[in-house]
Amino acid sequence: MVSRRQQVAVIGTSDCEPDSEPAELAEEVGRLLAGAGMALVCGGLTGVMEAACRGATGAGGVAIGIVPSSETEEANPFCTHVVAAGIGHARNLAVVSSGEVVIAIGGEWGTLSEIGLARAIGRPVIALRTWTVHGRDRMADAPGVVPAESAREAVELALEAL
Amino acid sequence: MVSRRQQVAVIGTSDCEPDSEPAELAEEVGRLLAGAGMALVCGGLTGVMEAACRGATGAGGVAIGIVPSSETEEANPFCTHVVAAGIGHARNLAVVSSGEVVIAIGGEWGTLSEIGLARAIGRPVIALRTWTVHGRDRMADAPGVVPAESAREAVELALEAL
Amino acid sequence: MVSRRQQVAVIGTSDCEPDSEPAELAEEVGRLLAGAGMALVCGGLTGVMEAACRGATGAGGVAIGIVPSSETEEANPFCTHVVAAGIGHARNLAVVSSGEVVIAIGGEWGTLSEIGLARAIGRPVIALRTWTVHGRDRMADAPGVVPAESAREAVELALEAL
Amino acid sequence: MVSRRQQVAVIGTSDCEPDSEPAELAEEVGRLLAGAGMALVCGGLTGVMEAACRGATGAGGVAIGIVPSSETEEANPFCTHVVAAGIGHARNLAVVSSGEVVIAIGGEWGTLSEIGLARAIGRPVIALRTWTVHGRDRMADAPGVVPAESAREAVELALEAL
Repeated sequence: MVSRRQQVAVIGTSDCEPDSEPAELAEEVGRLLAGAGMALVCGGLTGVMEAACRGATGAGGVAIGIVPSSETEEANPFCTHVVAAGIGHARNLAVVSSGEVVIAIGGEWGTLSEIGLARAIGRPVIALRTWTVHGRDRMADAPGVVPAESAREAVELALEAL
Repeated sequence: MVSRRQQVAVIGTSDCEPDSEPAELAEEVGRLLAGAGMALVCGGLTGVMEAACRGATGAGGVAIGIVPSSETEEANPFCTHVVAAGIGHARNLAVVSSGEVVIAIGGEWGTLSEIGLARAIGRPVIALRTWTVHGRDRMADAPGVVPAESAREAVELALEAL
Repeated sequence: MVSRRQQVAVIGTSDCEPDSEPAELAEEVGRLLAGAGMALVCGGLTGVMEAACRGATGAGGVAIGIVPSSETEEANPFCTHVVAAGIGHARNLAVVSSGEVVIAIGGEWGTLSEIGLARAIGRPVIALRTWTVHGRDRMADAPGVVPAESAREAVELALEAL
Repeated sequence: MVSRRQQVAVIGTSDCEPDSEPAELAEEVGRLLAGAGMALVCGGLTGVMEAACRGATGAGGVAIGIVPSSETEEANPFCTHVVAAGIGHARNLAVVSSGEVVIAIGGEWGTLSEIGLARAIGRPVIALRTWTVHGRDRMADAPGVVPAESAREAVELALEAL
């Protein structure tokens, strides 16, 4: 039996510059997660994903990228391990399933789908300057989606949720 | 070469009574789609999905259910055809991909994930008393998600979007 | 409640000419299935899939194509309904899950994967001039894979297996 | 940029005892792969998968398990990292996509499906006392599936194929 690091998923847009706010938040989240002994799981591509991986591995941590195609070469260069899911956008389910808690940073439509999938399977979501969602009826208050204002707060909330 | 009906996806909660507002809206949407010669595609289960199928087939139309498990028996009894995807929640992608436009009615987290997946692959979404989403930055106004207030308006907007 | 046709999956290569042996077998299988009141399910592309759809719809039947991409336009023109799975080769699981029995005709590696997936979920496979597989140990005789020598025999065996 | 270990996929039955031939072969394959600096990828469950992980991590290596469900707890206790794919048998595609080469050991129907999927996406397969497949026509000799007689030979062939 081997000791396995707990895993936290980080989700967010593929389309942002390294010096943009989402990328800077993601890099700090990655760094803090590695410092806390967590392994990072993400979609393995560019933008928020790459920044989070850079933060995690820069701090000596583990970053697992789950890319949409069947080609591990699709991953950003800061992944320590790559899973090539081969199922396109459906790999979003694997990303959120593989984290015991999910941190969403910025993001586009794919990120919104991941928030929905994460909650559908019961994963807590920490929302760091990402989509705001309002349900109707029983979902009125979007339970299980907890807002955070900084990278540090997001990681603290994630660690509490474990 | 065969003439193929255009397909519209209807998404929404599995968990509502037949006489609830979402179910009644879904049944009317199904009926109107069938009347317009459209084939209905949905997740094939209960609640909004079953009501939409009942509406469509009650009006002589076609209702295709794409269920999560590998068992076609999982489908509600108002599906004319069933695809057993075998991939759990990841079948949400198949549901929205198979409609040229998507109508969302009420809904829970799975529905939110479908709205995100639909937009990620460029499908127009008609939002009938479902989630309200607010993005940040470029997604501020959630382009491509069009609100509707009645079943009739939802179907009209869907037909315009084709 | 609507009466639903039983569904039979036909699998085989995408890469054969319309006048090749696999395509001619597939077209006859499609025609015989339609004549027996079955709905055909397949991968929706070219070769054996297109020939089977042509046979089925030419005889007034139903042909459901489950294509790998998120685009229904990927389907051959003889599908009456299309599910765009969006999950690449993983849609092979949906194809075999959606048939109560599977008929394999000729085929390449994808077809071999479908035979394996069909048997993994317990679907009977009728093998019409396709792969021959020999297992080791308990699988020595590949139980559940029944060879057929003609389209007529394949369809008879499929109907018996229902 | 981080240095990433090359990844080799090991596939085989979930249903064999730890002292059976397939399990002993798998454990030795895992150990040899770790010794060669490779990361092991597998389906993360019992039998051949667990034995391969035990061999790899016992030798100080990395073992990534890609389990079918959405629960990382489904993995055997010798995985260093777990991806919970959430897509059932369709995760077989992720397993073979994530290895640059695939070693098949013993195995049941799921293993046969993985051999087919691996070849469909062009991965070399080393066949260690597993299924024998014979195609028809162009696939007559099952190109890309190379038989091995021992764990050592299997790993040598895999390393040559990289």
